[in-house]
Amino acid sequence: MYLGDTARVPYGNKSADTVTAYARQCASFLLSHNVCMIVVACNTASAVALDVLTREVTVPVVGVIDPAAERAAALTSNGRIGVIGTRATIGSHAYELAIARHAAVREVHIVSQPCPLFVPLVEEGWLDHPATELIAREYLRPLHEADVDTLVLGCTHYPLLKPLLARLMPGVTLVDSGECAAQTACSLMASSPIPTELGERLTVYLTDGAPQFRPMAEVFLGRSVAAPSIVSLDTHTTIGT
Amino acid sequence: MYLGDTARVPYGNKSADTVTAYARQCASFLLSHNVCMIVVACNTASAVALDVLTREVTVPVVGVIDPAAERAAALTSNGRIGVIGTRATIGSHAYELAIARHAAVREVHIVSQPCPLFVPLVEEGWLDHPATELIAREYLRPLHEADVDTLVLGCTHYPLLKPLLARLMPGVTLVDSGECAAQTACSLMASSPIPTELGERLTVYLTDGAPQFRPMAEVFLGRSVAAPSIVSLDTHTTIGT
Repeated sequence: MYLGDTARVPYGNKSADTVTAYARQCASFLLSHNVCMIVVACNTASAVALDVLTREVTVPVVGVIDPAAERAAALTSNGRIGVIGTRATIGSHAYELAIARHAAVREVHIVSQPCPLFVPLVEEGWLDHPATELIAREYLRPLHEADVDTLVLGCTHYPLLKPLLARLMPGVTLVDSGECAAQTACSLMASSPIPTELGERLTVYLTDGAPQFRPMAEVFLGRSVAAPSIVSLDTHTTIGT
Repeated sequence: MYLGDTARVPYGNKSADTVTAYARQCASFLLSHNVCMIVVACNTASAVALDVLTREVTVPVVGVIDPAAERAAALTSNGRIGVIGTRATIGSHAYELAIARHAAVREVHIVSQPCPLFVPLVEEGWLDHPATELIAREYLRPLHEADVDTLVLGCTHYPLLKPLLARLMPGVTLVDSGECAAQTACSLMASSPIPTELGERLTVYLTDGAPQFRPMAEVFLGRSVAAPSIVSLDTHTTIGT
């Protein structure tokens, strides 16, 4: 079950209070459908609301920050890690804290950079447009200068920019936070390989029937997606298990 | 009284149903504070929700589309008018309909262009950045080719791009939808000149305390703005007068 809060996205520029309130409503909706695990597949919500959700919900909750932080800490050779994300994710310092925790005794240097224009550029479909490259060069300059050898793509939309980012940051290992979270979720489910064929098992709920959602989802997933159901979260304001 | 639905903006990529539901909640909040007129200072909400609000609310409701459409129809010399706005505004065809109504017997040719990246670029403060110019050139190309002599800035954020747009569209008259709506509101209040000094009479309510709001508002208004109050619209779901 996929729930997209399309009526209120993007979360990336909103305050922690608002994002937490929305995340709790989303969790409550999913729990009312008897899910046995929740993946918070949004870096902003993971950065600011994961602690609250983990405390309030009795099913396992997997965020996208910790798995990617663990991977980055394990992959870096020179101990210099870059993190890109929304303003809210970067402002929360969630990645710094998680990477430092996983690096343990080793010294790591982390350079973080908010990239607020990447989400609208991806939603516009300008994945390899000259303007996207110009903007990416500007955002990535501090990471370049800091000589990072590992770059965490700390936002769900950024993997679509991988070809461009790989070209602009040659030799740098890109860490996809969604992929890391999916592997953690699968391990928890005790079925290690990530299912590549979702088949009819994917049900999509949205809070707004934005017409651009379905073609965008099909670009992300590389397969056709059934028509989403539109739901309201207004009646799901308290979390119950 | 200014109410900014910062918890749920931007409206520009959402469906008409969702924007209408949010606009009704906003109107209900303002009416509960005994306002004597409502200005829908958002092109997207004006484009899709003005009819509903006008029907349901007993105080005068001024949108930003009709005043700008009237001005553009009056100002064009060659009858060729460009309109730029969000995806929702352009998709609604509200400007085409309003301009055609005001042009009356005269034949006008209207070219509309959604510019979804302009809002995030303005919010990033990149008003005259090379990337903004590159993107603007691409968006404006069809309007250039159509030889428009009048360009409606059909989104509240676009006036901040005026210097860039004027440079890229020399000789074209720019119509600021906010300015036109303000004049209409003032005429309705029977106080023709727009007050330039708002003084302490401006009270700002927001649905999310995003830290970037206040500096952005001060850029727009060219003056300092008092700290906003954060409000919830959840209890204002029905319109009453």
